[in-house]
Amino acid sequence: MSTVIPKPLGDLIDSLAQLPGVGPRTAERYAYYLLRAEASKADSLVQSLAKLHAGIKYCPKTFALISSDQELSPIYTDPKRNKQQVAVVADPFDIVALEKTNSYSGTYHVLGGLVSPIDNIGPQQLKIKELIQRIDEDKVTELILATNASVEGESTALLITQQVANRPVKLTRLARGLPVGVDLEYADQITLTRALEGRQSL
Amino acid sequence: MSTVIPKPLGDLIDSLAQLPGVGPRTAERYAYYLLRAEASKADSLVQSLAKLHAGIKYCPKTFALISSDQELSPIYTDPKRNKQQVAVVADPFDIVALEKTNSYSGTYHVLGGLVSPIDNIGPQQLKIKELIQRIDEDKVTELILATNASVEGESTALLITQQVANRPVKLTRLARGLPVGVDLEYADQITLTRALEGRQSL
Repeated sequence: MSTVIPKPLGDLIDSLAQLPGVGPRTAERYAYYLLRAEASKADSLVQSLAKLHAGIKYCPKTFALISSDQELSPIYTDPKRNKQQVAVVADPFDIVALEKTNSYSGTYHVLGGLVSPIDNIGPQQLKIKELIQRIDEDKVTELILATNASVEGESTALLITQQVANRPVKLTRLARGLPVGVDLEYADQITLTRALEGRQSL
Repeated sequence: MSTVIPKPLGDLIDSLAQLPGVGPRTAERYAYYLLRAEASKADSLVQSLAKLHAGIKYCPKTFALISSDQELSPIYTDPKRNKQQVAVVADPFDIVALEKTNSYSGTYHVLGGLVSPIDNIGPQQLKIKELIQRIDEDKVTELILATNASVEGESTALLITQQVANRPVKLTRLARGLPVGVDLEYADQITLTRALEGRQSL
C-alpha cells in the first residue's frame, strides 16, 4: 500500500484508527476529510489536542474534569448546590447527561470506572475511599448510586452499599423502568420486571 | 454545560464533531478516550495532523495523493505499469480499493469528485481536461471508467464518454452484476437487471 498512500496520510490514518470504534475505513474517511478541508480545520484540531492533556485535570474532591487553572469543580463550589447530596457516577461524561436533565441540584462523585474483573478494574482502582472521606467531611445525607444498569454497574453499586453500611447516609438508586416513549410490548423482560417491581401508587 | 465540560475538552469535542458522520456524542467519546489514553497517543495524532497539509500534495499527472517530496505518483512512474491503460476514479481512496485486488497493472486518473448539481460540482471542477491531455500525451488506448454505480457516477461516466468521443481510445466500464457471495434472491432489481444484461457465455 505504501506506494498508494503517501506516508503523512498513512500516519494520520494509523493515529485515527486508534480511536474507539474507528476501523481502517472510517479512519481513511476522516483523514481524507481533513485533507480536503481547509488547513484551518486540521489546525484547530491540532491546537485543541495539544492543549488537552496540559489543560485538563481531575477535581481532587469530585474527580470531575476541570481546567488546570481551577482548583475544584465549579459544581462542587457552587453555593447553590447541596453538598450533602452526592450522585455517584462511573465517568465524567455521566455528569453531563445528568446535568442536561436540569433537575438535580446536588453534587457528584466520579468513580473513574466500574468494577470489572475482565478489564482488571478492582475496587482499589475506583475512588471509593475518597467517596467515604467525603461522606464524613461534608456530612453527606444521600448517595444516589447513578451507575449503569449493567452487571458492572450493579456490582459497583452493591460494593459501595457494603462499604458505607456503617455510616448514617441514605442510599438511593436511579429508577429502572420503561423509558419514556417506548411501547410496553417492545420493552425487554428485565426492564419490564424492574418496572413492575418499582411500580408507584397513583 | 460550560461548568461541566472544561474548555480545553469542549474545544476538542467541537473540533472532532466536524469530522464526517461524527455527532456530539461520538466526539465526546473520542475526546474522553484521548484524555484517558497516555499523552503519547494524542501527541502522535498531533504530529501526523500537523504534517498532513504540508506533507501531502496531488500528483500533477494522475491527481493521486503523493508526499510533498515526490514529483509524480509512484504508480505512474513505475515502469512495470502500463501508462496506456488508465482507470478513471472519483477519489484517491478508490485507487486503494482497486490496488487491493492485485489484478490491475495500468495507471489511474483521479477526477476529484463526481458531477453533482446538488453539491455544485460541475464538469469544470473535475480533472477531465487533464485526462484528455493525458490521453493525447501518453497515447492512452483504454480508459476504464471506474466510477460508482450511482446517478452521479453514471452521469460522470457519460460525460467523459462524450468528451473523448473523437479520440481513438477504447472505453470500458467496471462490470455490474451480482456481488460475490450474495444470493440471487437477495439481489436488488437493478443489480439483477445489470447482471442479466452483462451475462457472459461459458
